[in-house]
Amino acid sequence: ENSTAGIGVDQELISSVPSWNSTFVSRNYTDAEIAYCGGQPNAPASFAGRWVGKEAVFKSLGVASKGAAASLKDIEILPDESGVPQVTLHGDALSAAKTRGISKVLLSLSHSDTIAIAFAQAS
Amino acid sequence: ENSTAGIGVDQELISSVPSWNSTFVSRNYTDAEIAYCGGQPNAPASFAGRWVGKEAVFKSLGVASKGAAASLKDIEILPDESGVPQVTLHGDALSAAKTRGISKVLLSLSHSDTIAIAFAQAS
Amino acid sequence: ENSTAGIGVDQELISSVPSWNSTFVSRNYTDAEIAYCGGQPNAPASFAGRWVGKEAVFKSLGVASKGAAASLKDIEILPDESGVPQVTLHGDALSAAKTRGISKVLLSLSHSDTIAIAFAQAS
Repeated sequence: ENSTAGIGVDQELISSVPSWNSTFVSRNYTDAEIAYCGGQPNAPASFAGRWVGKEAVFKSLGVASKGAAASLKDIEILPDESGVPQVTLHGDALSAAKTRGISKVLLSLSHSDTIAIAFAQAS
Repeated sequence: ENSTAGIGVDQELISSVPSWNSTFVSRNYTDAEIAYCGGQPNAPASFAGRWVGKEAVFKSLGVASKGAAASLKDIEILPDESGVPQVTLHGDALSAAKTRGISKVLLSLSHSDTIAIAFAQAS
Repeated sequence: ENSTAGIGVDQELISSVPSWNSTFVSRNYTDAEIAYCGGQPNAPASFAGRWVGKEAVFKSLGVASKGAAASLKDIEILPDESGVPQVTLHGDALSAAKTRGISKVLLSLSHSDTIAIAFAQAS
């Protein structure tokens, strides 16, 4: 089954993602994501890129928002060896995907000086 | 036939979509869209989101722009029970889609404080 | 094989793409692109739109960035008779696509007064 089940787009001002707030970060990012983003030249942009990435993946799964940011930790985004962001689902996000027959989520990220944007495609 | 026939992206400043103009609104939005957007906490953002959504769907159909905004009323965008925007085509937009063998258009919307963005995928 | 191999999104401030710089232009755009963009009412926006388009296509191919802007000339973007941007790959970009079994790249472009954005889907 290769047809697209859902798509998702999201954007945020990089300055609006509170990557300086350790409670926010530990609630929404996995340890591997925190290690990766923290090691990037522009850590706030990297955290913000993952934030919109998680939101875009969430939308592509076609599930209603839970209103609880905590679940975004179940959507893990890490680069492969070519730098292409790879999506791994855990917990509730993985369950929602399985229920809908979604086995793969493609993701692309971009940021300018001020805005981060993401696009996701679930199939 | 599940392959993607076309994709579309569009963005606008929310302030540039004249949702306060009833002539503009009645020409471009269906009654159901007007009822929905008017009932949202941020009605201008909701109207602007649908505006870029209609433009993105239009692009995904791969047809030349008619230069007549009126045809955007033929692209109706309403949320399903999970809040995922669903696209229904009417009139000329439906005819154009049928001619190209397009039976489904997926859509995702996002807006920040100032910018609305949409992505569509037709298959 | 119709399944999506990769997707790509990119955005830039139109003012950040130095379309006034002939060295930059001749290094990154084909002759046909230069002729097309130069003939548009808003040439800087047209050059910037193609720039983000090339970056988005590049991302959709799933290859690591070469750090050399020159290779973007291998990604040519020209409108068809309906105005829909068509992607033609040359050189290294074509080789990378073939290696990954990619035979088609869909692209959509949008720009506001200040920002150009592109979305690409490779299959």
